[in-house]
Amino acid sequence: MKFSLEQSLHILERIPSILRTLLVNLDEEWIYNNEGPETWSPFDIVGHLIHGEKTDWLLRVKIILKGGPNPGFEPFDRFAQFDQSKGRSLEILLQEFDQLRSANLIELKRYNLGESDFVKIGIHPKFGQVTLKNLISSWVVHDLSHLAQISRVMAKQYRVEVGPWVEYLPILSS
Amino acid sequence: MKFSLEQSLHILERIPSILRTLLVNLDEEWIYNNEGPETWSPFDIVGHLIHGEKTDWLLRVKIILKGGPNPGFEPFDRFAQFDQSKGRSLEILLQEFDQLRSANLIELKRYNLGESDFVKIGIHPKFGQVTLKNLISSWVVHDLSHLAQISRVMAKQYRVEVGPWVEYLPILSS
Repeated sequence: MKFSLEQSLHILERIPSILRTLLVNLDEEWIYNNEGPETWSPFDIVGHLIHGEKTDWLLRVKIILKGGPNPGFEPFDRFAQFDQSKGRSLEILLQEFDQLRSANLIELKRYNLGESDFVKIGIHPKFGQVTLKNLISSWVVHDLSHLAQISRVMAKQYRVEVGPWVEYLPILSS
Repeated sequence: MKFSLEQSLHILERIPSILRTLLVNLDEEWIYNNEGPETWSPFDIVGHLIHGEKTDWLLRVKIILKGGPNPGFEPFDRFAQFDQSKGRSLEILLQEFDQLRSANLIELKRYNLGESDFVKIGIHPKFGQVTLKNLISSWVVHDLSHLAQISRVMAKQYRVEVGPWVEYLPILSS
């Protein structure tokens, strides 16, 4: 599939309400359990998505559009949520994610981006040159990958309870 | 996490609206593309979930509760959706899934199941003895695993467009 801003926005704008529908008013075990040491719970993942809205995706779009001699991105802190989500409820985090995402997409649409923008370049701290098209595509894939991760983390909570069905449910062994 | 009927219902009852939010009014490429030969698109997966509501999960619950000398399950057809979804729109399929799931959960709740029911036995065509608890847990995990699958299939449509980010997005290589 070729990159399309419209088709990307269709995904980016629905992820907050999908997460809300999936996660609100659930028992704590569904929300705070993870896949084992050094892995993330659904609660941790929502915090990570918030941090991305605040410090990563749209800021990098702006750096690319600004251009200039040094369109370098700041490195992203993949563990910031452990401090930032502390003591907050999932409900509040979901609300914050929704608000930040909406504001970011409104801003993104204001730029009226076209084909000539999508090939503009930024400098990623690890990969070097990346295009605006790469960046927005990755934003979408990142959302979908964390939706898949949340589903997997939740599925694994019933790993023992499914009994022999574990054989037909490869997600439990992934 | 220990099996709980209530915590299982919390997931089973929200999956139809999650799928609706994720999939309605999307461009065809998000809906009909798959991961390659012999793999399923989001459209195929919704058809598979419908077939499960019609011929699998609740019917097996009933077989277990009925008991008797031969509580054997019919084998489930994993490919029925390819015929049954033909010529139908995703919108119609999502609606049908929603209706079937709601009706099945209303029926499930009517049974007022308790601890003594959860250990009752059915005979799976492949695994032999399974409990009602195994069955309902698998229903939940099956839902979550297909939500993860849909997210993965959609993510992979941008495999090329993410450029060098493919290295940070392991879902694209899974």
